[in-house]
Amino acid sequence: MTRPPAPHEIGLLEGIATTRAIRRFTDEPVSDADLAAVFFAATRAPSGSNRQPWRFIALRNDETSRRAKRLLGETARRMWALKRRGDRYDEGSGRRPDSPKARMARSMQRFAENFESAPVIVLVCFLRYREESHFEGASIFPCCQNLLLAARARGLGGVLTGFQAGAEAELRELLGIPDEVVLSAAIPLGHPEGGHGPVRRRPLREFVYQGRWGETPDWAVDPPGTRHAKAGPPGHRTFLDQGAGDGA
Amino acid sequence: MTRPPAPHEIGLLEGIATTRAIRRFTDEPVSDADLAAVFFAATRAPSGSNRQPWRFIALRNDETSRRAKRLLGETARRMWALKRRGDRYDEGSGRRPDSPKARMARSMQRFAENFESAPVIVLVCFLRYREESHFEGASIFPCCQNLLLAARARGLGGVLTGFQAGAEAELRELLGIPDEVVLSAAIPLGHPEGGHGPVRRRPLREFVYQGRWGETPDWAVDPPGTRHAKAGPPGHRTFLDQGAGDGA
Repeated sequence: MTRPPAPHEIGLLEGIATTRAIRRFTDEPVSDADLAAVFFAATRAPSGSNRQPWRFIALRNDETSRRAKRLLGETARRMWALKRRGDRYDEGSGRRPDSPKARMARSMQRFAENFESAPVIVLVCFLRYREESHFEGASIFPCCQNLLLAARARGLGGVLTGFQAGAEAELRELLGIPDEVVLSAAIPLGHPEGGHGPVRRRPLREFVYQGRWGETPDWAVDPPGTRHAKAGPPGHRTFLDQGAGDGA
Repeated sequence: MTRPPAPHEIGLLEGIATTRAIRRFTDEPVSDADLAAVFFAATRAPSGSNRQPWRFIALRNDETSRRAKRLLGETARRMWALKRRGDRYDEGSGRRPDSPKARMARSMQRFAENFESAPVIVLVCFLRYREESHFEGASIFPCCQNLLLAARARGLGGVLTGFQAGAEAELRELLGIPDEVVLSAAIPLGHPEGGHGPVRRRPLREFVYQGRWGETPDWAVDPPGTRHAKAGPPGHRTFLDQGAGDGA
């Protein structure tokens, strides 16, 4: 039934465990074939009643795309500056240049400064078909995850951002996006400067219950050798702590 | 850097393209090891600021879990009955037993009737950390997709449902779920009766634009031999049409 993976094709579980957020790209363009493969994978995701309510606008190097990317870049810098202050990235452990918080701040600063230089930025759009609710995300964000995993399979990288939210009206006008279409995400894509690798999270036992909220089963353990993120729950309820993660 | 896939491990792109919605399960229990692997993969997903705001309750075979599963089963039947009527599954082409609509109705009917017999139902919970918005789904539904892909890699199958929405108060009380926690999804998991296989979607050209809304690039084409779903956009704006898809 299943075609065996090509010798250098990464396996499904290994791919899932090593798809990091990539925020630095080389200048190498992304090929049409890579984009087609990435969007094909994205659209294999499930959606409510198989409605397939996703649309993607690939912003590349034409004049309109460059203007849209600049709008996104300006928003990225504005939103990051607010967050940097509001979440006090430069206080506490953030004063030590080698702290996770300071490293995260440098990484985000560089990301925001260069946001529009990503070879491709994918604007993910959602055709809303009933009243807005939490659950509608089940029909659009699984396809974003497929997109990121497929990018990793093709030697690319990217990261899910919400920076489109800061320039919605301008993006709609510039790109001709109808009013009823929701702008769900902006995903920069390119060839990673640096690489993918194991993502870090909190220990599995903090996330998995059995039979009842709070009842952690014995089997909820990470594979041997798993390294954990310092950020995240429990007991770290402020962004300041949680934002100082591994950036994954 | 990357471990080569084991001989029988499915590749990342192949896995993404062949993870179907599985709604029929054998009686074979799901092992602890399989569950641990599936949750490990789920929690490798990205989330805003790496907050990892997901919690999972695995409902298996203990008394409380069986009661929770029954609540979900009752909801599934109630919600499906409403949808069957409201979306007129038994009218038009639905009168022909071999039509996609009639087949979908039979599949959903059987699914709802047997909902609680899935070996595991995963209740996906979300720790909301700011005002509700469309974008919060970006921090919970990618992990659901990882979960489904990992299930497929382990020889399991499942499907993302919203049936928990019909029994929220009862589930909270029974399972001790705090009020501030959002119930995002209910995902039955088990060994598939039948198998995975290529999912079907509308042609890629209907989903992908370049540089501007509505501008379809030449390269937005499916791989050779791709079979398309009849359901979905464009020009099929009612659930009646869209629901008669391939169930994937």
